[in-house]
Amino acid sequence: MRCNHPADSSSCNQETQTNINLMDVFNFVDLLPAKNGEEPTMQFLLEIVEILTNYVRKTFDRSTKVLDFHHPHQLLEGMEGFNLELSDQPESLEQILVDCRDTLKYGVRTGHPRFFNQLSTGLDIVGLAGEWLTSTANTNMFTYEIAPVFVLMEQLTLKKMREIIGWPDGEGDGIFSPGGAISNMYSVMIARYKFFPEVKTKGMTAAPRLVLFTSEHSHYSIKKASAALGFGTENLILLNTDKRGRVIPADLEAKVIEAKQKGYVPMFVNATAGTTVYGAFDPINEIADICEKYNMWLHVDGAWGGGLLMSRKHRHKLNGVERANSVTWNPHKMMGVPLQCSAVLVRERGLLTGCNSMCAGYLFQPDKQYDITYDTGDKAIQCGRHVDIFKFWLMWKAKGTVGFEQHIDKCLDLSAYLYDKIKNREGFEMVFDGEPQHTNVCFWYTPPSLRSFKAVYKLFVAPKIKAMMMESGTTMVGYQPQGNKVNFFRMVISNPAATRSDIDFLIEEIERLGHDL
Amino acid sequence: MRCNHPADSSSCNQETQTNINLMDVFNFVDLLPAKNGEEPTMQFLLEIVEILTNYVRKTFDRSTKVLDFHHPHQLLEGMEGFNLELSDQPESLEQILVDCRDTLKYGVRTGHPRFFNQLSTGLDIVGLAGEWLTSTANTNMFTYEIAPVFVLMEQLTLKKMREIIGWPDGEGDGIFSPGGAISNMYSVMIARYKFFPEVKTKGMTAAPRLVLFTSEHSHYSIKKASAALGFGTENLILLNTDKRGRVIPADLEAKVIEAKQKGYVPMFVNATAGTTVYGAFDPINEIADICEKYNMWLHVDGAWGGGLLMSRKHRHKLNGVERANSVTWNPHKMMGVPLQCSAVLVRERGLLTGCNSMCAGYLFQPDKQYDITYDTGDKAIQCGRHVDIFKFWLMWKAKGTVGFEQHIDKCLDLSAYLYDKIKNREGFEMVFDGEPQHTNVCFWYTPPSLRSFKAVYKLFVAPKIKAMMMESGTTMVGYQPQGNKVNFFRMVISNPAATRSDIDFLIEEIERLGHDL
Repeated sequence: MRCNHPADSSSCNQETQTNINLMDVFNFVDLLPAKNGEEPTMQFLLEIVEILTNYVRKTFDRSTKVLDFHHPHQLLEGMEGFNLELSDQPESLEQILVDCRDTLKYGVRTGHPRFFNQLSTGLDIVGLAGEWLTSTANTNMFTYEIAPVFVLMEQLTLKKMREIIGWPDGEGDGIFSPGGAISNMYSVMIARYKFFPEVKTKGMTAAPRLVLFTSEHSHYSIKKASAALGFGTENLILLNTDKRGRVIPADLEAKVIEAKQKGYVPMFVNATAGTTVYGAFDPINEIADICEKYNMWLHVDGAWGGGLLMSRKHRHKLNGVERANSVTWNPHKMMGVPLQCSAVLVRERGLLTGCNSMCAGYLFQPDKQYDITYDTGDKAIQCGRHVDIFKFWLMWKAKGTVGFEQHIDKCLDLSAYLYDKIKNREGFEMVFDGEPQHTNVCFWYTPPSLRSFKAVYKLFVAPKIKAMMMESGTTMVGYQPQGNKVNFFRMVISNPAATRSDIDFLIEEIERLGHDL
Repeated sequence: MRCNHPADSSSCNQETQTNINLMDVFNFVDLLPAKNGEEPTMQFLLEIVEILTNYVRKTFDRSTKVLDFHHPHQLLEGMEGFNLELSDQPESLEQILVDCRDTLKYGVRTGHPRFFNQLSTGLDIVGLAGEWLTSTANTNMFTYEIAPVFVLMEQLTLKKMREIIGWPDGEGDGIFSPGGAISNMYSVMIARYKFFPEVKTKGMTAAPRLVLFTSEHSHYSIKKASAALGFGTENLILLNTDKRGRVIPADLEAKVIEAKQKGYVPMFVNATAGTTVYGAFDPINEIADICEKYNMWLHVDGAWGGGLLMSRKHRHKLNGVERANSVTWNPHKMMGVPLQCSAVLVRERGLLTGCNSMCAGYLFQPDKQYDITYDTGDKAIQCGRHVDIFKFWLMWKAKGTVGFEQHIDKCLDLSAYLYDKIKNREGFEMVFDGEPQHTNVCFWYTPPSLRSFKAVYKLFVAPKIKAMMMESGTTMVGYQPQGNKVNFFRMVISNPAATRSDIDFLIEEIERLGHDL
């Protein structure tokens, strides 16, 4: 039956036919831990792996589409029998395999060489293997007791990251969190704990009116943290940037002084290393000077740009990062690690635990037989915590530091190639002048038919081309407005599979689709 | 070379020998997206799968150990060449395979039928397949654009969960979060937004002194949320419980009145459905009456006990849950879904978005071609969000609602079996009287040699036996103190592989190890 399925007719051969016929008679109750469950289990898993390896093959094949777009109502109505509804009764394992194939068929190939839509792209094979192992091990980071190897890997990797940041001997602390937004939230919490530890017990009313600062171009997670942690978004002051999207240090100092004059307490500054849209790097050293002068916490949000620390050629863009009190760094972005993999690193040891520990006796018994300083749970805001370290550790083993460096240098070379190619190309207009600092290349495109009406139609072109792009499924790139700049394309390159030919393809595809406007 | 490796000599045969010899010459640069990378990629992934399927086989084999315990310093020094340190230069893919084997060898088999250490145990094969697929798809939940199928699966599954809770037509909202602690944190944030929406912009100083209530037996994440969100842990009032660990509603009402008399504003009550240690279910209906009377938000933390809603026999323990304003429910605990899988469900639609939205233009463009109400990112405190839904959805498909019900009923039957077996057994003493409400069975064991000194030695017995248990690697069960009760064993059963014989084994193993004390 599988060979009749439209989703995967290519994999039809005698061997899989046989497997399917066997699979047909099995249900989940036949799998392990069922008695005699080993054979159906192995067979089922190998069927799954065949589906997945086919998907991997196609992901890297430029002749396949990036996506097969359907509207929500179409998928909800059930595409060719793909029924998303849950029911009371079990499905056969054969149907489960069909469901898996359909899930992949109607999804988006984020590893495709022409997928440029997000900061996280690509499909690293070693990272993928690491994630398969992680889910097979199915354990939890909170104690050494049940994750001895992963806890140590996390510790060693965090230390290595701190060394690369430039903190002496890699000293400090840190933790892997479920993403950059949570990592940034940690930094605000820790800063508050450092300056006003009584807030932990007495609440925000125990502190004076605290003020935070971040770039108008920074990630919205700083704003989310201000709201969630009880500061209030009004107490997050947005800093002006230059035309390239970098914080103007003088503006920070002026706003700090203004806040102090009002009787507020400036507490925390976020400097972004690689903004989401422009890829701008705030001048960390100049910001650090101001933080030292006014006794404020300096956080560097390197969720996107932190990866450049691995490159001898590009790490100067983060000069001064070693002066930060905390750093967010997401290997799942520029370093190509599968989702999720984000770290927050803290220069001063003890703060993370001090801030978050509640000493839950049922989990963190002081009378265990091993060195319980290896139990990490009490420094997290989480209790259970997913194992995000292994895939990253394994990739680091496989590539070495030099492999990450090569990947990053290559992506930045590609973005320079793109920039050079379009900066003077007809119909293209750069959103800001000069070579991008990161792989972000921001531009408008105006099709020939609209060039005389440019100002009026600019707003609609990128959304329209993006919609056509998704419907044709050939490539994906993001667009957005920023401040008073209306919708423009933001090209980002973090995909190790991308080559110059894919960059060429993207430009030509935008032009091709634009022609029909 | 692989066949000489101590970790996996059993899988030695001609075919793998050949593979290994090939693998030996490959490095990560030969994998996709390398030109001609398809063959080494497929071969590498199949090697990984062989390692993983061997591990799965052994996990369910009672003749294997649950763990091979080593102290942190032993693993850090490098066991039989297993080197955790990261280096600048790449390793061969062959070494990567060895690293994978070693990682599993020195880990803990959380799916082993005799692993009872945590609330999350077991290894569901369909769930595992789902997680392998998830990591292969490697996408992100924030927009429909790049996760169309997963976003819809999440929506349908959350609706189904709300129906099961008993909210009319499954209306309301919800989101999958990185764990129960974060889900509980969401509930406090949403409650605050409901009553004091101005806190989002103005901070906690815009609200009166707010007070939260939770059981002295509740999970520490409520306390973590109080600290993180700016309430302060002193404004979290702990409620007294009866001998079974259930909140005494009269104590809640008395403390609410007391807080009001002090001029504080009682805002939020957490009722636990299945406490971590005793497995107690707070009386939700009586607590709901008080919440209605005093206009407080009622949250039900069903991280552990929520799964019982799937069982017609046991769901009465959560009677009144439909009166909650929000519910935490972790399928990765009692329902056997691989980690991480936790949902927070909210009765009133709009609050989750109102509380968290920041309308980031670069991600959530209003001018997309599809119905953007399907973009979930702006209701999260995260930006990127891991795909936690697919494994759960796939398991539900494979088992049906009835399959989850059977699993839960079986685990509760097993705990009743354990309780019956030890309640009058010599040397065993129950921590509280009566049949457990959940699968938690709490008991002290006193070895024959210490029975005359019982009171003095009680504190040391469980840690000592647990340490011996880990060193012999035969089984794992948790212990902890609770209030003035010193260290006792907490047995929990969520593992679908466990049988009565494993319960018998646990008891006999505790007695066997105790004999040497």
